[in-house]
Amino acid sequence: MARNTRIEHDLVGDKEVPADAYYGVHTVRAVENFAITGSTISQFPELIVSLAAVKQAAATANRDLGLLPQDLAGAIIAACEEIRGGRLADQFVVDPVQGGAGTSTNMNANEVIANRALEIIGHPRGHYEVIHPLDHVNLGQSTNDVYPTAVRLALVASLRLLDDRLGKLAAAFTAKAAEFSGVLKMGRTQLQDAVPMTLGQEFTAYAVMIEEDRQRLTEAAALLLESNLGGTAIGTGINGHPRYAELVCARLAEISGEPVQPADNFIEATQDCGAFVQLSGVLKRVAVKLSKTCNDLRLTSSGPTAGLGEINLPPVQAGSSIMPGKVNPVIPEVVNQVAFEVIGNDLTVTMAAEAGQLQLNAFEPVIAYSLLRSLAHLRAACDTLTTRCIPGITANRDHLHDSVHRSIGLVTALTPHIGYAASTSLARQALATGRPIKDLAAETGMLTIAQLDTILRPEHLTGHSAQAAAKVSP
Amino acid sequence: MARNTRIEHDLVGDKEVPADAYYGVHTVRAVENFAITGSTISQFPELIVSLAAVKQAAATANRDLGLLPQDLAGAIIAACEEIRGGRLADQFVVDPVQGGAGTSTNMNANEVIANRALEIIGHPRGHYEVIHPLDHVNLGQSTNDVYPTAVRLALVASLRLLDDRLGKLAAAFTAKAAEFSGVLKMGRTQLQDAVPMTLGQEFTAYAVMIEEDRQRLTEAAALLLESNLGGTAIGTGINGHPRYAELVCARLAEISGEPVQPADNFIEATQDCGAFVQLSGVLKRVAVKLSKTCNDLRLTSSGPTAGLGEINLPPVQAGSSIMPGKVNPVIPEVVNQVAFEVIGNDLTVTMAAEAGQLQLNAFEPVIAYSLLRSLAHLRAACDTLTTRCIPGITANRDHLHDSVHRSIGLVTALTPHIGYAASTSLARQALATGRPIKDLAAETGMLTIAQLDTILRPEHLTGHSAQAAAKVSP
Amino acid sequence: MARNTRIEHDLVGDKEVPADAYYGVHTVRAVENFAITGSTISQFPELIVSLAAVKQAAATANRDLGLLPQDLAGAIIAACEEIRGGRLADQFVVDPVQGGAGTSTNMNANEVIANRALEIIGHPRGHYEVIHPLDHVNLGQSTNDVYPTAVRLALVASLRLLDDRLGKLAAAFTAKAAEFSGVLKMGRTQLQDAVPMTLGQEFTAYAVMIEEDRQRLTEAAALLLESNLGGTAIGTGINGHPRYAELVCARLAEISGEPVQPADNFIEATQDCGAFVQLSGVLKRVAVKLSKTCNDLRLTSSGPTAGLGEINLPPVQAGSSIMPGKVNPVIPEVVNQVAFEVIGNDLTVTMAAEAGQLQLNAFEPVIAYSLLRSLAHLRAACDTLTTRCIPGITANRDHLHDSVHRSIGLVTALTPHIGYAASTSLARQALATGRPIKDLAAETGMLTIAQLDTILRPEHLTGHSAQAAAKVSP
Amino acid sequence: MARNTRIEHDLVGDKEVPADAYYGVHTVRAVENFAITGSTISQFPELIVSLAAVKQAAATANRDLGLLPQDLAGAIIAACEEIRGGRLADQFVVDPVQGGAGTSTNMNANEVIANRALEIIGHPRGHYEVIHPLDHVNLGQSTNDVYPTAVRLALVASLRLLDDRLGKLAAAFTAKAAEFSGVLKMGRTQLQDAVPMTLGQEFTAYAVMIEEDRQRLTEAAALLLESNLGGTAIGTGINGHPRYAELVCARLAEISGEPVQPADNFIEATQDCGAFVQLSGVLKRVAVKLSKTCNDLRLTSSGPTAGLGEINLPPVQAGSSIMPGKVNPVIPEVVNQVAFEVIGNDLTVTMAAEAGQLQLNAFEPVIAYSLLRSLAHLRAACDTLTTRCIPGITANRDHLHDSVHRSIGLVTALTPHIGYAASTSLARQALATGRPIKDLAAETGMLTIAQLDTILRPEHLTGHSAQAAAKVSP
Repeated sequence: MARNTRIEHDLVGDKEVPADAYYGVHTVRAVENFAITGSTISQFPELIVSLAAVKQAAATANRDLGLLPQDLAGAIIAACEEIRGGRLADQFVVDPVQGGAGTSTNMNANEVIANRALEIIGHPRGHYEVIHPLDHVNLGQSTNDVYPTAVRLALVASLRLLDDRLGKLAAAFTAKAAEFSGVLKMGRTQLQDAVPMTLGQEFTAYAVMIEEDRQRLTEAAALLLESNLGGTAIGTGINGHPRYAELVCARLAEISGEPVQPADNFIEATQDCGAFVQLSGVLKRVAVKLSKTCNDLRLTSSGPTAGLGEINLPPVQAGSSIMPGKVNPVIPEVVNQVAFEVIGNDLTVTMAAEAGQLQLNAFEPVIAYSLLRSLAHLRAACDTLTTRCIPGITANRDHLHDSVHRSIGLVTALTPHIGYAASTSLARQALATGRPIKDLAAETGMLTIAQLDTILRPEHLTGHSAQAAAKVSP
Repeated sequence: MARNTRIEHDLVGDKEVPADAYYGVHTVRAVENFAITGSTISQFPELIVSLAAVKQAAATANRDLGLLPQDLAGAIIAACEEIRGGRLADQFVVDPVQGGAGTSTNMNANEVIANRALEIIGHPRGHYEVIHPLDHVNLGQSTNDVYPTAVRLALVASLRLLDDRLGKLAAAFTAKAAEFSGVLKMGRTQLQDAVPMTLGQEFTAYAVMIEEDRQRLTEAAALLLESNLGGTAIGTGINGHPRYAELVCARLAEISGEPVQPADNFIEATQDCGAFVQLSGVLKRVAVKLSKTCNDLRLTSSGPTAGLGEINLPPVQAGSSIMPGKVNPVIPEVVNQVAFEVIGNDLTVTMAAEAGQLQLNAFEPVIAYSLLRSLAHLRAACDTLTTRCIPGITANRDHLHDSVHRSIGLVTALTPHIGYAASTSLARQALATGRPIKDLAAETGMLTIAQLDTILRPEHLTGHSAQAAAKVSP
Repeated sequence: MARNTRIEHDLVGDKEVPADAYYGVHTVRAVENFAITGSTISQFPELIVSLAAVKQAAATANRDLGLLPQDLAGAIIAACEEIRGGRLADQFVVDPVQGGAGTSTNMNANEVIANRALEIIGHPRGHYEVIHPLDHVNLGQSTNDVYPTAVRLALVASLRLLDDRLGKLAAAFTAKAAEFSGVLKMGRTQLQDAVPMTLGQEFTAYAVMIEEDRQRLTEAAALLLESNLGGTAIGTGINGHPRYAELVCARLAEISGEPVQPADNFIEATQDCGAFVQLSGVLKRVAVKLSKTCNDLRLTSSGPTAGLGEINLPPVQAGSSIMPGKVNPVIPEVVNQVAFEVIGNDLTVTMAAEAGQLQLNAFEPVIAYSLLRSLAHLRAACDTLTTRCIPGITANRDHLHDSVHRSIGLVTALTPHIGYAASTSLARQALATGRPIKDLAAETGMLTIAQLDTILRPEHLTGHSAQAAAKVSP
Repeated sequence: MARNTRIEHDLVGDKEVPADAYYGVHTVRAVENFAITGSTISQFPELIVSLAAVKQAAATANRDLGLLPQDLAGAIIAACEEIRGGRLADQFVVDPVQGGAGTSTNMNANEVIANRALEIIGHPRGHYEVIHPLDHVNLGQSTNDVYPTAVRLALVASLRLLDDRLGKLAAAFTAKAAEFSGVLKMGRTQLQDAVPMTLGQEFTAYAVMIEEDRQRLTEAAALLLESNLGGTAIGTGINGHPRYAELVCARLAEISGEPVQPADNFIEATQDCGAFVQLSGVLKRVAVKLSKTCNDLRLTSSGPTAGLGEINLPPVQAGSSIMPGKVNPVIPEVVNQVAFEVIGNDLTVTMAAEAGQLQLNAFEPVIAYSLLRSLAHLRAACDTLTTRCIPGITANRDHLHDSVHRSIGLVTALTPHIGYAASTSLARQALATGRPIKDLAAETGMLTIAQLDTILRPEHLTGHSAQAAAKVSP
């Protein structure tokens, strides 16, 4: 036996564990078995915190049911509190991508909590006869109820952060929309000139889209707050105390501050990944829209001379090592890429969910890994878009104004007054000569200059009714 | 000019149209331009009906606003009624996969309705100076508000049918669950023997999963019932009557029987595909779970001698051209394949939604095509599973009973009574000798036969609490 | 028994079959079991032809091995020849999406061939004691070697057609590239002005991309031409004649005109879907590039006044029901949508391939369905793009010329002569004043007008070396 | 200005850089702009090495062309050599997911190399007037040719490692196949008993599949070895020396040891992501097959008593916190999850590739990120499968033997001797009584015991011909 190690034992046999490690034999085996991503679960602080919250809720419930002695429960709860406060994060060393349906993550938590609890009450690490990772920390639990519950809580915590950032992003768009409310521009369908609108309307639409996504996220969170704690191995609750499920859920709600509820059917809840698939679908929806919005920003800021040149994104870094003065839309570009990653992650989640068998889905670790990364990366993407891009956008107002008045799209507004046939004729003339619709229309004598001025007033062109006005829910 | 044709005209020029066709020049051009799938939009009756409903609502609103003469409105409404009743379906001949953001589908509807309306009031086809496909049938509308609204209504109609079929499928599982409520079997996690449960519990879980999906479908339908009718080209409502949007939406709700609502922001609503992405995500969720369920059915019916052999699926056709007596799980297999198709379609929808630009998504036709097919195929898959497979399933009760009593998984139930260490030792003995846990446990003298009988009673093994009981919402 | 039916029998029992049907009981059962897509395998003529080719090869090999009497073989071969010529297509009525790993498709072929062969030699349909669908038509075969072989051949046939159309599309781009070889334009990176190039170079790149894809398609075809015929049920060749595998493969090569080869390992070949996944990946690659190209065409033709306005796509239909004179890029738009569909189909293929179990993949029908549709739709998309869009494209030469000479991107060409710092300064001046780089550079006195004329010559700006010249493989 | 910093300047303005950093202002800006994944490009050592190789090749070519002074070239080359040897890895601090088409990665490399080169020749960091990151290190280059070339080389390097690991995995399966060559088992199609085979044949098929994938990987590598170095900004080679492209490619081939070739068309090569999509498709293929294989391993090792129980995977960790003695197939499970991740990454790559516009794809960073991760994770998955699972697999030979002799699948072998009808009858009897086919067949008197012994000899049942024998390419 090497110095600075202790020996622990499992069904495979004896194993050396670093003497100062809070984790134990099961964690060491898992680290060896799953050296996949080069990273550890500690990259997801919300997962570590949620694991500790579940363990704390279980210890509290077991204590209240008389299943766990007060002193042991106290030590375990104290250890969990510390971990929830951010301590011992470096002891969560298993790879997030792991076989075993999350058993290694659960074991890692059980071991770290047991050893820290031992330490708190004055025992050396590894003295599991006093506080045992399984018999005490995992009492009344199974990986199959602990792990998904912790993952769900972690997802909700991360989702709340994303929701906050989306709110800030929507606010940034709304502020710009107000700034650009008087800026007339050509609306386009299928990239072809359509009819006029304001730049403010364009930016308001982005804000509205984001606010709608926030509602979908909140709905998805509700589904994640169903817990199967107490179902143990497969949801039948074998070996569990009859009052445990209700009690642990109530404790977990208190500790986490989230309205966790027991699932209606624990067997179904233990095997079902529907809530994960639903969240993933909503994240994909968020990604699709953010990507579309960033595509628009890149397109309307194209130029400076050979592009659309409608708006300017603030320069945040030099664009080229060979072309002097070039500035590129790098912030929207990175958001696009995060969106593509999130959409790819959705597929990973889908395949993993489909691959569940019988009473359990063994592939929840890659589901958790994918969703927690999607949430974190989307959050970061929103941050950089909100702070480094949107507020600094400026409009090329003269160019936009000209483009409307040179556009044949204006002819649509004349149709109710001079008819479709005359309008089509005007459109053709305008396209052939490059002359403004207004001048050509005046020359026909069908409408006076005064009439044309009225018809082509911006507020007439860009919306007539309450429905068309921007409504962004707070 | 060939006999049996008439000449119509558009901006490209003159074009021959079959004399007896209700459709016109725009439809003929589209048929030539988009010969992609070898099929027509008439394969989706709910789309044709919804198009007619939108046109009827528009004609009614325009009449009530005094924009469309009573007699013309009456003829148009009569034509729409006929189409909603299933007539003229063969006149909807454009390919569902089309460029132009649905313009060709809208034009096809405008032309068929105009010509049938002409016929109703005694005019020959093509006499558009009386009733014009654009000036009258399409009055106050744009493809960009008509097409997405019709697609959304069609999706809701198809979704209602799927919801009904999922309800029947859940009921079939629930009926089987009742039949199998007393059949003990080994529950499994990660394909390894875990702890006992009943076959009834297993089938109940399938029913619960389906019922949860039905709730998600209903939520998705609500999002689809927001309409941008009245927004015209890009949502600004250019050329529209100020009261039109509200009125047409109310009429459409009456005609369709669905609670259609005007969108809060028409510009956003015109470009946003969020509701399609959401529905697609939910259909993917349904597919994932149906596939998982069918995987389980195929797995537990594997055999007859070298498989798990827990249940038997009813034979519905011969399984092999070379192996006498072979019966295969062909119904679950086809459901799996539909699920894979739906998941693929979700990707198509995702990419199409992401590709929208500025004020419109030009790719809604392939979104509609993908979603309508997913809905129809899922419905068919549920039908065949409900009628040809689930009710005929039988259980191999003796084999299941034996498998529980031979399994070392029973040892988990003894752990609270004899401890984890003694249980592990019993498990090893059982595995090595093949002898039942109960016999081995009795031999230790730690528990009496009477105690063991109590501990190993099925109702004890398979659930202790109300939560574990099946709850299936109606 | 109803009139106009005959009774056939299978392991499920007796079944009425339409008296004039060439198909039999197994087909009728399959039609009932799998009413999924509303379509039949006859939508894929290449699949029907390939099935008949396999059956003909088998009959020939069995005859030559003395396993099938000459007269029966003759009748079977004659029936297969007819089907390969396009007859009896309406008798292939099973749904392409089916459970049973293709058994129903194989049975449909066996039954149609048997009954037509019976007819040829003067027997009524259903007299299987003379020519039996299984004992004679399916002799020495299994669905598990027949079906994948027929699907592979059908895919190769369809792939050859796609390859031909891609060649025509590349040729159309090459022809345009020649026409546009002297048209200077601004090249762009990240949608920002970069450095000059010619429109001819831009179109050449599209042609080169397509030609590279054609090479990948040809490689994918080679993998599909490995057959497991003779492996029967699982590849062990049980009940097969030792010389059959070699012989049937040689015959099939003769009949099909494709260099079909026996697989190296029949067990692996029977369960492996690698060749399908590979083809699907290549089709996705084709789709990605076609979509990118069509995105470019839509972008550079945006306008007419508020867009990039570099090129004009030929109008092929009216673009709007509300906006007079609007023309949309409908042909590229439909190609984009086909690309999204193909990418979705690739996912379906991927999931189906992953879901194979043990000695067989039961989900080959949906793989075949997805790939055959992807091939057919891509072919149609290429057709419409080649015939209705590319040749009619025109360039706005003056606008393109101006955009180069107004662009600050020209400054990059001055960098080797006046340094990066001075170039950056010029770029800033140009951007601020809107004046041409050339004028500003002349004013600095650092370069003469003559020098500038030389430096800014198009042939200097757009490429200096053989590598940059267009090379398109034929 | 804080102590321990130096000031650098770019087009955005002045910026503090840590005094001891080898990177400079562009890197610092990028770190701020792209705080997405919480990781840096240094996680991909092969990318850092490849970047240094490209920069070294460029410096060498520029020196040989007389464009870069000998002493500066020498210092730059020395710095590149150090980086290729693994030094300064901690200076590559930009996030792999970044906007700007890789500019930040290129700039990071330029800056680190410049500052280390300065140090080598005795100058302080930041003295760019001596050696400039752009004017010297990036001389004749653009991000748009440097970055994709470095990514391609990095992918090839990682691909070679994966290829090696796949070879070891195939060898492990082949070794097991030899060990199990005499173990008879039931082959299955559609999870139903089919006909006998050996366990050796089953494992050989896995090895063959892997070897075929290795061939596809090698083909994909060839496509990646085309370089656009010398094309500079968009492939026209503006500002480049006419002999540079050829020379730099030759040098890069020498330095990297890989047969890098100049692309045929640099404009096409600069914008095309086809080689990435192709590699991604092949990695997906590898993932699909590994996943299928692991599904099979999990399925055939299911049990211990209520599963198929054909093979045993070596226990590598305890399986459950609640169920004593439970061992789970954790190694195959983690491989499945990596496969799902790789398939998700393929979608990310696909979307990013499709989103390229005009002369460049701005989304190559997320393509590189996805592919490098897929390669690394697949490699790790193969490692753990090869070292911790396959060699320790044992077979339950008696159980497998019994399952064959109890199976009705044996009846297929009798069909050529007693006919399909008698065989079907025997199958039914066997299924009803549970008695062996052999006994029942003997009782019919149609075949003697001696005949039956011959027919049912394992070598007869499991393959008759050379084709069926395992052929695994080395």
